[in-house]
Amino acid sequence: MEMALEEARAAAAAGEVPVGAVLLDAAGRLLARAHNLVETLHDPTAHAELLAIRDAARRLGAKRLEGASLYVTLEPCAMCAQAIAFARLGRLVFGAYDPKGGGVDHGARIFQQPTTHHRPEVVGGVRERECAALLRTFFRDRR
Amino acid sequence: MEMALEEARAAAAAGEVPVGAVLLDAAGRLLARAHNLVETLHDPTAHAELLAIRDAARRLGAKRLEGASLYVTLEPCAMCAQAIAFARLGRLVFGAYDPKGGGVDHGARIFQQPTTHHRPEVVGGVRERECAALLRTFFRDRR
Repeated sequence: MEMALEEARAAAAAGEVPVGAVLLDAAGRLLARAHNLVETLHDPTAHAELLAIRDAARRLGAKRLEGASLYVTLEPCAMCAQAIAFARLGRLVFGAYDPKGGGVDHGARIFQQPTTHHRPEVVGGVRERECAALLRTFFRDRR
Repeated sequence: MEMALEEARAAAAAGEVPVGAVLLDAAGRLLARAHNLVETLHDPTAHAELLAIRDAARRLGAKRLEGASLYVTLEPCAMCAQAIAFARLGRLVFGAYDPKGGGVDHGARIFQQPTTHHRPEVVGGVRERECAALLRTFFRDRR
């Protein structure tokens, strides 16, 4: 999660909403790290999680990343949660909860849908205060 | 929808699940067309809708495509539906309904979530039989 926080700080420095993600394989080796690039790429789908999954899948030449663990500083939205299910990730660890935009413990609750065929193990609230503080500071400074 | 069906046929010819998408701006001009490339790109997120949105947003240099219309041969999944909301598309027209994988009229029902802040106009079932037949034939031939 420290590496995901580093990514989130890099996002903030670039004027992006500070969310960072790190993807590890089943043996704990780094597969990909990414941060939010929605503004930089002019791409509404360029969330940290999606970028990390796409990067790792392309590099491994595999559309599924079974057993991989994703660490992300914010609860994934429904788009990213569904991508996590498609990629068959084994584990999702996230920092801050997101009652407004989250799709795991809030909103669409993707992994609780009977039509979602893959559910990773989910651990939320890891280093929650630091992850949330980054977002709070970013949005406060923008006002 | 004819152009989206052409894209879907091109997907089938390439061994991809036959789903095609076409994105038009508010004046009806073509912004992007795409088909499913999950296998080709080794990318679990490479659905037709996501590719079309990313392509159009990048080319226009805008993360939002307000007023644009997306024509897609299959009901979007939750990932793509959430991306449609992020991109602020004005209209979604889809062909076949997808009770197993859809996220618009089934499953997560993204646009019905109170936390989804943008809801496009949605028209489902357009040229439904042709769109569904393409998928049926593709999966039958693969068995």
